[in-house]
Amino acid sequence: MGSGMARNLLHAGHELAVFNRSREKSQVFEAEGARVARSLADACNGAEAAVTMLSDDRAVEEVAFGEGGLASALESGATHISGSTISTALVRRLASEHAARGQGFLSAPVFGRPDAAAQGKLLVVAAGAPELVERYRPVFDAIGRQTFVAGLEPWQANALKLCGNFMIASMLEAFGEGYATLRKAGVDVQVFLDAMNALFASPVYANYGRLIAEDRFEPAGFALALGQKDMRLLLETAQECVSPMPLASLLRDHMLEGLAQGQAHMDWSSVACVAARGAGL
Amino acid sequence: MGSGMARNLLHAGHELAVFNRSREKSQVFEAEGARVARSLADACNGAEAAVTMLSDDRAVEEVAFGEGGLASALESGATHISGSTISTALVRRLASEHAARGQGFLSAPVFGRPDAAAQGKLLVVAAGAPELVERYRPVFDAIGRQTFVAGLEPWQANALKLCGNFMIASMLEAFGEGYATLRKAGVDVQVFLDAMNALFASPVYANYGRLIAEDRFEPAGFALALGQKDMRLLLETAQECVSPMPLASLLRDHMLEGLAQGQAHMDWSSVACVAARGAGL
Amino acid sequence: MGSGMARNLLHAGHELAVFNRSREKSQVFEAEGARVARSLADACNGAEAAVTMLSDDRAVEEVAFGEGGLASALESGATHISGSTISTALVRRLASEHAARGQGFLSAPVFGRPDAAAQGKLLVVAAGAPELVERYRPVFDAIGRQTFVAGLEPWQANALKLCGNFMIASMLEAFGEGYATLRKAGVDVQVFLDAMNALFASPVYANYGRLIAEDRFEPAGFALALGQKDMRLLLETAQECVSPMPLASLLRDHMLEGLAQGQAHMDWSSVACVAARGAGL
Amino acid sequence: MGSGMARNLLHAGHELAVFNRSREKSQVFEAEGARVARSLADACNGAEAAVTMLSDDRAVEEVAFGEGGLASALESGATHISGSTISTALVRRLASEHAARGQGFLSAPVFGRPDAAAQGKLLVVAAGAPELVERYRPVFDAIGRQTFVAGLEPWQANALKLCGNFMIASMLEAFGEGYATLRKAGVDVQVFLDAMNALFASPVYANYGRLIAEDRFEPAGFALALGQKDMRLLLETAQECVSPMPLASLLRDHMLEGLAQGQAHMDWSSVACVAARGAGL
Repeated sequence: MGSGMARNLLHAGHELAVFNRSREKSQVFEAEGARVARSLADACNGAEAAVTMLSDDRAVEEVAFGEGGLASALESGATHISGSTISTALVRRLASEHAARGQGFLSAPVFGRPDAAAQGKLLVVAAGAPELVERYRPVFDAIGRQTFVAGLEPWQANALKLCGNFMIASMLEAFGEGYATLRKAGVDVQVFLDAMNALFASPVYANYGRLIAEDRFEPAGFALALGQKDMRLLLETAQECVSPMPLASLLRDHMLEGLAQGQAHMDWSSVACVAARGAGL
Repeated sequence: MGSGMARNLLHAGHELAVFNRSREKSQVFEAEGARVARSLADACNGAEAAVTMLSDDRAVEEVAFGEGGLASALESGATHISGSTISTALVRRLASEHAARGQGFLSAPVFGRPDAAAQGKLLVVAAGAPELVERYRPVFDAIGRQTFVAGLEPWQANALKLCGNFMIASMLEAFGEGYATLRKAGVDVQVFLDAMNALFASPVYANYGRLIAEDRFEPAGFALALGQKDMRLLLETAQECVSPMPLASLLRDHMLEGLAQGQAHMDWSSVACVAARGAGL
Repeated sequence: MGSGMARNLLHAGHELAVFNRSREKSQVFEAEGARVARSLADACNGAEAAVTMLSDDRAVEEVAFGEGGLASALESGATHISGSTISTALVRRLASEHAARGQGFLSAPVFGRPDAAAQGKLLVVAAGAPELVERYRPVFDAIGRQTFVAGLEPWQANALKLCGNFMIASMLEAFGEGYATLRKAGVDVQVFLDAMNALFASPVYANYGRLIAEDRFEPAGFALALGQKDMRLLLETAQECVSPMPLASLLRDHMLEGLAQGQAHMDWSSVACVAARGAGL
Repeated sequence: MGSGMARNLLHAGHELAVFNRSREKSQVFEAEGARVARSLADACNGAEAAVTMLSDDRAVEEVAFGEGGLASALESGATHISGSTISTALVRRLASEHAARGQGFLSAPVFGRPDAAAQGKLLVVAAGAPELVERYRPVFDAIGRQTFVAGLEPWQANALKLCGNFMIASMLEAFGEGYATLRKAGVDVQVFLDAMNALFASPVYANYGRLIAEDRFEPAGFALALGQKDMRLLLETAQECVSPMPLASLLRDHMLEGLAQGQAHMDWSSVACVAARGAGL
């Protein structure tokens, strides 16, 4: 994800320093005009904003609060823009810790897979102080095709993002259960998928419906382990909001069953295997 | 539904006799070239095929097996085309009873609301003996924009249709739970809907997402009582196939809760109210 | 079940005619003082009451409404006492059809396995017209250790019975999920069972908890196929009552998954295998 | 809980120092022979073991790791015995932090309400190094009627305890759904409860079944907010063990719905209200 975003920021004319633990990953950007930073602190040196895109709470905590992390390295008045899909609790902590240091903070998770990131076609969900959102809109415009402002509190962007992943996961489960029953009914699931494509006319249904119909779960576009994590994060947010989400619980449990069956590295659409196994397929 | 279908059959040049319990409903078709039948038997007189479109198993049983019903009135060699979304068990009974009388039988339930029927834009899901499906394809072409052949057994069309309604109902539930949590999180659900429209790019999401965001459940396009019935029928089919569908169970239960709260006549998208109430909204 | 009940009726001094499709099964009762009937009609001849104990709706329908069945064979004024755990819908039909013929009808399903039946220790749940319940109380006293009167409508006894089986099934599922997690946590489930026995002090927990801890699902005391049927019947009754039962839905689905995995003939406590498999055990 | 345990430790002849934030609560024990400590540090002074019984993770974290907490105040070689029902993650942290300071650690959560604590009739679930479990067995014997050893790892005691609460909660939900359906069926739930008492013969069923039948949810013996917390903790443990528990998810969600409806302070048996409301009662 980060590569595509970095390239689009460069193409949009932004001055960019890149940092990655494995220096080789950063190196390729040198030729494209980026400065390769030697450390997080070096990357933050003189920066107006630091954009992070990491896989989970632990990684973000380390980058933000670890030794030499953003909280200490970012200059006062500079802003941390967090693109990671992480817990709303951590986002609240990021907001308050950065504020305590005179730093700005925006949360801006995105919808879209690596290929969308490469084409600058991500959907950006931003939240935070309106003046910050406006100031960094050129960043969002560079990496995405549309930006949605979720609210004044950074964590609201993550609540929205997690609910979006929940909408997709609901569709995956529905395909899984529908296909399982139709297979046992002797109906060709391809005919069902054709009908669903005519009905929903959505590329998301077309893509995932095909992956599941063809049992094509590797390589993963988005790993089941990450999808399961997102359903857990959503349920934590729902708990904070005192809002029961029984369908999200079902998805979390089925994805956990997938992990117990060794599917952690497969695409999250492989949650459909759980319904298939349940039906004895 | 029936009116739109009848009109499109007339426009396509088919010779048509119409019958409805309330004679006035039939009368309007006289001016458009249809013959108004005095009874089911009269409607079947000389007919090559009889198309039925009724609301539930009970209505179909009466029309097919009641006194003067299709089973006795249809001529040998003529075909009953059932467009109703009914149980797979009843479809199997219809198939065998008609066969025993030398009559043909096709099941051809449709996706689409009355306005789609009026415009001939239904999606038709047909199943039965291939030669019958081919013989009556002009009928399907007249009423729908696309026809999907689900299998050799008429009940397979109903299995597919019920799974399609299940896909839509899953989306309704997901919107309901997502909106409930986002409302409690202080996020504007319209922003969420905009993001989902950008993500899924599906008119089905756009329409239902808007109805639920605006709490516009009346008049019903498809009543909750009928949606609940379909989830029950699907679970009966899944039982026959020995295929567990926990998400369908959740939908059936939430819709039943809606009925217990007096929402039977509201649109089935009002299943979203159950999640909202659960969150104390 | 029937053998134990028959013997206890004889021991209590009732005059008894027995009928079973396989004559040998009846023969053994001759030595104990029963009359062996040649047919259902013969069994009903001169009888004050006919007690049936059958496995499902289909069997009861045949015995009651089939050729030479109870509806035609029972004398006016005599009573059909149905001990079967069947659908509330069928019980209502039995009540009305017998009433139309001037025959009485009581529903009296029982809790208890064959050994409890042999010892006259069943729990009887009776419902119907109070004067009939009182008239046949000696029958209930002969077969059971306690009689509970569920209401004026015979089907209410079945509603209560199904809810009782639901209470047991809930415990089975809870043991299944608890054991699965504890096994993966490296905790000896026997220690957990000891603690639950100290906590609940219930022989039902002790017995089923041990069966599940030891994976002893054969021979079945009560087959999973029958348990699954009861959860289905309960959900049908709940649907009639417009009362959602999400836990009953979960049980029905898990038991269905057990059937899909070939456990139909195992004890219904083998529903615990579903949770174990889900955890990768 | 703490009062009863303290008194039973005194009666068993143990030397006891008590500490409570509100000094008056401690004072009453002075007359019974306890020393009233001025601080946690003072309570730990010279102590062989420190027993804590607190309501949640936060309280335990503060007492263990806060300024002047057990981790710093306990002497090397002394043991922290944690009786609280807390997360397995926190128990693991307690074990490792105490070990790093040369202190012992045992987890020993208990089953039983305050009246059982007063009578020394708790069920104690202990886990940790066998030599420590044996050394402190007199403590467990003083406060409980039976001790169960869950394993070598302290957190295993909490896993077992959480599963025990899950067994009770499953019963509460089953009563809730059963009563709701039976009420709508016009069946007297007291008759159902009588039958369940005859069937299960368990005081736990008798007590909770009566509370729910009579809608007597205040004062709470164990608050719904705490019950909901335990279901969450259990699901966290199940996640660590990669073991899906759909019934626990259902319980967590229903209890959360109870919280959203303002039942946080009511007894956890009030989860039954959720099923009742769902049925329109």
